[in-house]
Amino acid sequence: MSEFSTAFPNSQKVFIAGAQGVPGIKVPMREIALEHGESSIRVYDTSGPQGHDVKVGLPKLREPWVRARRAAAKSGQAVTQLHYARKGEITPEMEFIAIREGLPADFVRDEVARGRAIIPSNINHLELEPMVIGRNFLVKINANIGNSAVSSSRDEEVEKLRWATLWGADTVMDLSTGKNIHETREWIIRNSAVPIGTVPIYQALEKVGGRPEDLTWEIYRDTLIEQCEQGVDYFTVHAGVLLRYIPMTARRVTGIVSRGGSIMAKWCLSHHQENFTYTHFREICEIMRAYDVSFSLGDGLRPGSIADANDEAQFAELKTQGELNTIAWEYDVQVMNEGPGHIPMHLIKENMEKQLEWCQEAPFYTLGPLTTDIAPGYDHITSAIGAAMIGWYGTAMLCYVTPKEHLGLPNRDDVKAGVIAYKIAAHAADLAKGHPRAREWDDALSKARFEFRWEDQFNLALDPVTARAYHDETLPADGAKVAHFCSMCGPKFCSMEITQQVRDYAREKGVAEGAAVSAGMEEKSLEFRKKGEIYVTSPKQPALSE
Amino acid sequence: MSEFSTAFPNSQKVFIAGAQGVPGIKVPMREIALEHGESSIRVYDTSGPQGHDVKVGLPKLREPWVRARRAAAKSGQAVTQLHYARKGEITPEMEFIAIREGLPADFVRDEVARGRAIIPSNINHLELEPMVIGRNFLVKINANIGNSAVSSSRDEEVEKLRWATLWGADTVMDLSTGKNIHETREWIIRNSAVPIGTVPIYQALEKVGGRPEDLTWEIYRDTLIEQCEQGVDYFTVHAGVLLRYIPMTARRVTGIVSRGGSIMAKWCLSHHQENFTYTHFREICEIMRAYDVSFSLGDGLRPGSIADANDEAQFAELKTQGELNTIAWEYDVQVMNEGPGHIPMHLIKENMEKQLEWCQEAPFYTLGPLTTDIAPGYDHITSAIGAAMIGWYGTAMLCYVTPKEHLGLPNRDDVKAGVIAYKIAAHAADLAKGHPRAREWDDALSKARFEFRWEDQFNLALDPVTARAYHDETLPADGAKVAHFCSMCGPKFCSMEITQQVRDYAREKGVAEGAAVSAGMEEKSLEFRKKGEIYVTSPKQPALSE
Repeated sequence: MSEFSTAFPNSQKVFIAGAQGVPGIKVPMREIALEHGESSIRVYDTSGPQGHDVKVGLPKLREPWVRARRAAAKSGQAVTQLHYARKGEITPEMEFIAIREGLPADFVRDEVARGRAIIPSNINHLELEPMVIGRNFLVKINANIGNSAVSSSRDEEVEKLRWATLWGADTVMDLSTGKNIHETREWIIRNSAVPIGTVPIYQALEKVGGRPEDLTWEIYRDTLIEQCEQGVDYFTVHAGVLLRYIPMTARRVTGIVSRGGSIMAKWCLSHHQENFTYTHFREICEIMRAYDVSFSLGDGLRPGSIADANDEAQFAELKTQGELNTIAWEYDVQVMNEGPGHIPMHLIKENMEKQLEWCQEAPFYTLGPLTTDIAPGYDHITSAIGAAMIGWYGTAMLCYVTPKEHLGLPNRDDVKAGVIAYKIAAHAADLAKGHPRAREWDDALSKARFEFRWEDQFNLALDPVTARAYHDETLPADGAKVAHFCSMCGPKFCSMEITQQVRDYAREKGVAEGAAVSAGMEEKSLEFRKKGEIYVTSPKQPALSE
Repeated sequence: MSEFSTAFPNSQKVFIAGAQGVPGIKVPMREIALEHGESSIRVYDTSGPQGHDVKVGLPKLREPWVRARRAAAKSGQAVTQLHYARKGEITPEMEFIAIREGLPADFVRDEVARGRAIIPSNINHLELEPMVIGRNFLVKINANIGNSAVSSSRDEEVEKLRWATLWGADTVMDLSTGKNIHETREWIIRNSAVPIGTVPIYQALEKVGGRPEDLTWEIYRDTLIEQCEQGVDYFTVHAGVLLRYIPMTARRVTGIVSRGGSIMAKWCLSHHQENFTYTHFREICEIMRAYDVSFSLGDGLRPGSIADANDEAQFAELKTQGELNTIAWEYDVQVMNEGPGHIPMHLIKENMEKQLEWCQEAPFYTLGPLTTDIAPGYDHITSAIGAAMIGWYGTAMLCYVTPKEHLGLPNRDDVKAGVIAYKIAAHAADLAKGHPRAREWDDALSKARFEFRWEDQFNLALDPVTARAYHDETLPADGAKVAHFCSMCGPKFCSMEITQQVRDYAREKGVAEGAAVSAGMEEKSLEFRKKGEIYVTSPKQPALSE
């Protein structure tokens, strides 16, 4: 049995073909079959093709789409989704996404054209199932993986990629810093149906033996090209960490907490020169446009504590990010902006408002934010609160935080806990934004709950196996799966059962709410008393000892 | 070793005496000792007196305070905190709370006098350490315990009470529905230093064999008196579920999900009569004023799904709750209002606004709200999001939700998971509301984190043992507890270490932020390059193989 069918019993992958016969447009969805004649429902699926040999990699879905672009790139033309969108062209990637999001393809194109959405899709990442990041689409989540000098092996990282996307990660960042960075990344990309992001300065730093002051533009540039060639879909570039902003962090409680940010800060300080990713920004754009790698402009000065939230350093960098967006767009390079960190709830909205204003509505991509500092071990929760809120306010992608944040590298369980917490945050944000398709899932689950379709309730859950296991701890008998009660109230009394009676009554009589009282309450009163506790003697209800 | 010292290493209970020498005013705080000469910090403590025999119960702290009131009650006088507050009197309970919250005692009194805060404190609950519920105080959380016909024993429930309050539950509701309700409750109250709430209709229902239509006012009244005598501090009374509101739930996706609400609904329907807790509301007030039991006016029609949020039925009941508040206040009875359930983020604020308006600022006490329906097994998270938000908007107490919600009865682990998620939500709300003392804790933890005081970081965490265990999974060596790095970046590079250098530099030079760049960056550049990687060769940093 595959991981997919173990994780999602009663679900199957279905593929929706594009209308126009473009090869490879087969959009995956997860179809959840329901019982008692209920229609199945389809949900967004990020798990990618299943059952492939890790050493071979995934099928090269995009090969026919990018062939012409590769030739164009060699002759120096832009091959970015932004470039095509601005020309009015609908790419296969946009068609794929239109089906995936349930929106018209020209809407996808228009959002990309105006820079309000990006489609991270390196022309060398052929295994990618295209997706879009923008605030007029479903809120996305990112999971970070990657080994460090201290821990974790290459195989573990590929396994984490598959695990994270199984549970719903829309993109994955490979933040490896230890040995074998190149090889680990190769394995990850070849086995990834979701966009892969990296922070190229990490690898550049390894090349100079871990000494930030020894970094040079040339080493960094070569690293970018190396990763572009491999197929990385987006780069975090901390080009907004300017020399003059660094002293703004001196009085902070937690200074600079971003690794990329502090590498650049140390380089700037030790050379007394401006950040080389800023001074060479146009050259970086030229490289990225030739592969369609998107920018994720880093927030190197993000606050690492509640005390430092929304301070001068953070907002100075955000403003510079906005200026850099404009330059990236000159080159037809797609761009999003990284944000938050630790922010108390009342200061979250200001982040979104300033980003919309200063960064011209480019997609915002935020870490959390964590809404308090006091709960290491539970920062998937402290941050899911902030993530849901900022997603509602307009953030397009939420970077997950695992329970291990601040304490260690996440293992398999931590990755799952982080992804689930962030799927909750993203979905809560979609509901709050009124996304037309978001509520369908909630309604299907609640209807199943109300009708005591236990199997359907489990299968519709974000994590069916856990939901079932929790139920079975108290009521393990199979009979309890069709029982018209649960362990919270027990068999003698059940609030949902009573409501069913209220509802049946209203439906039978066809009375309007107000009228119902005067029309037939007396009759109902008699009927109830005559038939007694029908739900206690119902044949549908098994004995607990069964 | 006690549970307290196992759960909170390096913490001890301290007691702050009242200034005016009232006997028994010794307010517990948890004092967390820090290392390296840092001042210890004190946090709010709900764990109650430790090490007492369950069969004997806790010390009777309030005995001297209530002696005179008991006599007064017998002669028919009101003995409620509201009564004394309105007379301008500061009770020992108010003094205790003033110290606990760090606010003036007359402020506590004034908030109680105007009905904006309550002090649930039955004159027969002598073991109580008084606390206040109101939006101008720290946000509180409630944990539900209680056995059902299907599961859980009496001893387990007392153990859950101790466990829930150890982790931070400010009040506990005993929702038992099975056998031995009276005896279980007796054990719980005698061993509880926090207010105990109940839903008396559950016990009344047991007395009539579980048949709602057989309930009578007399049986209910006798149950109230029985529980008043035992020392229950607040009663959930679903007096706002009026006959004419019941048909409003017929078209809902999930109808009536509150047990109390559906019991009353069934009674109303089967008798075609108005809710007897509504028609006898003044008699209920008379009973409760004689013991100082507070109302928690139930939300029997709260929405059980996103689809049903903020609907006609829910708001009709809320308006009636507001009318009932006014009647309770006529009798000097303290009152709060129950609210939410399942509410998407964008509809949360409306709940708070309507409650403030219709219920004259009486404290609001909400379940969650859960911000999506799709994650059974993780509803502590779906609801912590909503709870944090509504707490920020002004809700005074948050009723926890455990991971078992909708699936089964919570066990010990679930209770802890629920309490921790809600401590996070409540604290995040305190921060967002700008509570003067809330940020001290965050700042202490973040400062410890920044300074690599690992032991302090663990000990300051909401759950120190879990934080430490997560750290030790990756870096178990004792040496790593004093290392100036962690497993996320490894020993060769550490962002926090670099920031320390930036900060030291700025401090040494005494330069202002802007000036720092021009003043001495060149010098810094030289210095950095000369001394090399000081943090790599620092003697403070142990080898990983140690």
